[in-house]
Amino acid sequence: MKVFIAGIDGYLGWPLALYLNARGHSVAGIDNGYRRLLVREMGGGTITPIQGPIKRKNFARNMGIEFEMGDACGSMVDRFKKFKPDAIVHLAEIPSAPYSMAGFGECWLTFINNSKTTLNILWAMKDVCPEAHLVKLGTMGEYGTPDIDIPEGHFPVEFRNRLAMLPFPRQPGSFYHATKCADSINVELACKLWGLRSTDVMQGVVFGTRTDEMGNNEKLLTRFDIDECFGTAINRFCAQAVIEHPITVYGKGMQKRGFIPLRDSMQCLGIAIENPPEAGEYRVFNQFEGTYTLVSLARRVERIGASLGLKTEINYIENPRIEEEKHYYNPDCKELPRLGYRPTRAVTREITSVLQDLMKYKDRIEKFKDRLIPEVRWDGTKRKSERL
Amino acid sequence: MKVFIAGIDGYLGWPLALYLNARGHSVAGIDNGYRRLLVREMGGGTITPIQGPIKRKNFARNMGIEFEMGDACGSMVDRFKKFKPDAIVHLAEIPSAPYSMAGFGECWLTFINNSKTTLNILWAMKDVCPEAHLVKLGTMGEYGTPDIDIPEGHFPVEFRNRLAMLPFPRQPGSFYHATKCADSINVELACKLWGLRSTDVMQGVVFGTRTDEMGNNEKLLTRFDIDECFGTAINRFCAQAVIEHPITVYGKGMQKRGFIPLRDSMQCLGIAIENPPEAGEYRVFNQFEGTYTLVSLARRVERIGASLGLKTEINYIENPRIEEEKHYYNPDCKELPRLGYRPTRAVTREITSVLQDLMKYKDRIEKFKDRLIPEVRWDGTKRKSERL
Repeated sequence: MKVFIAGIDGYLGWPLALYLNARGHSVAGIDNGYRRLLVREMGGGTITPIQGPIKRKNFARNMGIEFEMGDACGSMVDRFKKFKPDAIVHLAEIPSAPYSMAGFGECWLTFINNSKTTLNILWAMKDVCPEAHLVKLGTMGEYGTPDIDIPEGHFPVEFRNRLAMLPFPRQPGSFYHATKCADSINVELACKLWGLRSTDVMQGVVFGTRTDEMGNNEKLLTRFDIDECFGTAINRFCAQAVIEHPITVYGKGMQKRGFIPLRDSMQCLGIAIENPPEAGEYRVFNQFEGTYTLVSLARRVERIGASLGLKTEINYIENPRIEEEKHYYNPDCKELPRLGYRPTRAVTREITSVLQDLMKYKDRIEKFKDRLIPEVRWDGTKRKSERL
Repeated sequence: MKVFIAGIDGYLGWPLALYLNARGHSVAGIDNGYRRLLVREMGGGTITPIQGPIKRKNFARNMGIEFEMGDACGSMVDRFKKFKPDAIVHLAEIPSAPYSMAGFGECWLTFINNSKTTLNILWAMKDVCPEAHLVKLGTMGEYGTPDIDIPEGHFPVEFRNRLAMLPFPRQPGSFYHATKCADSINVELACKLWGLRSTDVMQGVVFGTRTDEMGNNEKLLTRFDIDECFGTAINRFCAQAVIEHPITVYGKGMQKRGFIPLRDSMQCLGIAIENPPEAGEYRVFNQFEGTYTLVSLARRVERIGASLGLKTEINYIENPRIEEEKHYYNPDCKELPRLGYRPTRAVTREITSVLQDLMKYKDRIEKFKDRLIPEVRWDGTKRKSERL
């Protein structure tokens, strides 16, 4: 299949290009480089030594991957006309909740980038390739933490003795998550109005350093961020463990979320791509291996770290976010397993592999270690979180 | 109270300024003039001969209303600091479903204008006047036409033997309606995170030429649009009747919507402003007088027109929209009546008054009558609707 990846230079985009390429698909993609830019702007940097964009472009070309730096907010029409994609994977979004809460400018950049890219892709698909399949990356965070189970896609709502199949109500917890809700709404609408087909992937938090395609070639590595904005829970915990910095858990740490290793995120996206829905169908997949509380993950990292000789401890720090710290959480994940998704690794084994990989880059973690403690607070202020 | 109106030059904004001023409130507002511009761009024009922006500004100043032409997308911080509003009414949105479906450019302008204005107001409120009350105009169209009753605000959802209070699922039918959903999500979020207070008004279709404050002073009239993008059902039907043009109903005409006369929209917004919610509260009001099918309204306009000597007929034309043409529709409207809203006029009496007002401007309707038949189709094409 011909697969176009919007956001091909990102944490997920690059390994997805490698994964699909290895599976025999023809891959092209574009990226505006915002991830590199914004991480630097926040004072962070990738821990894995990834290639610069030009080197990566040439490297990709040698593998048969068309890698272009450019704006996916700009018209996609010409690119789709030229490439004739069977599937378009839309990863071209600024994916950070804290970044979107840092100020009006950051909030608005997140909104404009994410909405415009999504709308641009939809309008271009309508005009150029209405038969193509849009695999759009959503987030489990669109649902918030409701007090009931979270289904996939429409679910039965009974109200005053009538029944309707309706989309699950959205309760995002940050402006970033709100942009994702807006995008999901737009994609569903385009499927309904224009007969486009889409898989909307409500993904849990991804963690991990590698996929099988990377082997031992450092040039194939994907970026790995640990700063408060673009780093996420397990990845940051592992980086902390490697430099024997306390593992910092926000608040009580009983916040529960879905998590999935990077390699299985690739597996799932591949399954979605290779099993397109019918024309006009908008389907929703929840995508995670399991749900875990933050503190249970911190404890695993601490324990596995100890078995590798790393001495660390867990520190509870002020939660910069406004979120429930103890709540019911029971999302479905049935659609992907039904199509063949099987977790390749237990979380424990994947954490071991992350810790081992990161040991090589200890000095790079040290370099950015002041970015490990959050400053951006959901109440609109900025201040480093203190230990509780 | 000190009330700031974002979108003060619009169909609702201007009469709201007059209404609140007459009730003794101190009123200031801003408008970027997009409504004037976009109606012209679509080849339309207001039927009522409203003043140009500069004349209106001076006229407003003489009445004690601060009327500013400027961009509500730009920073509101300075304006809020200076004016110290108790309430902010956010009407500064491009309100047209067909406009948003006309092409990527129109779609994106609607998205960027509406989201940016909303986010700008929210961030400025957080920093300058977190105690103020945001009255934001939503639309009944955010709900779509679900097969169950539509409550106001959160409602009980029972799923797999658990119960949660959740926002009603949103199913917008156009990109314009999608922007409104995004705005509602952002406003609810800001209330939750920052303790702002807001009333989100899910308004039905407004119709009418006047409010009591306008008396017989033509200079006080608000704009009245009849083109396919900015004109809405009853207003367009009345304009058609006045020039004895067939009243054009989209499709079967059994689409049911909530409708409210302009004067009662003012009454309702006034009630919302004068009865603010608690800090941190996000409340939703559905706002309409009653629900009607399009064809029942067309028949009323035809009948009342006949009683005024106007000969017209109803033509069913191809529906340019993709929407259900026969559906269940039973939204609640309990919150506003609970606070004192009483419809001042029956729909029939209000239609009579619109027809009488419009007779004076027959030649202006004739001038724009080629804009009465829709061209923008929801499937992304453009073609005048034919008679069915």
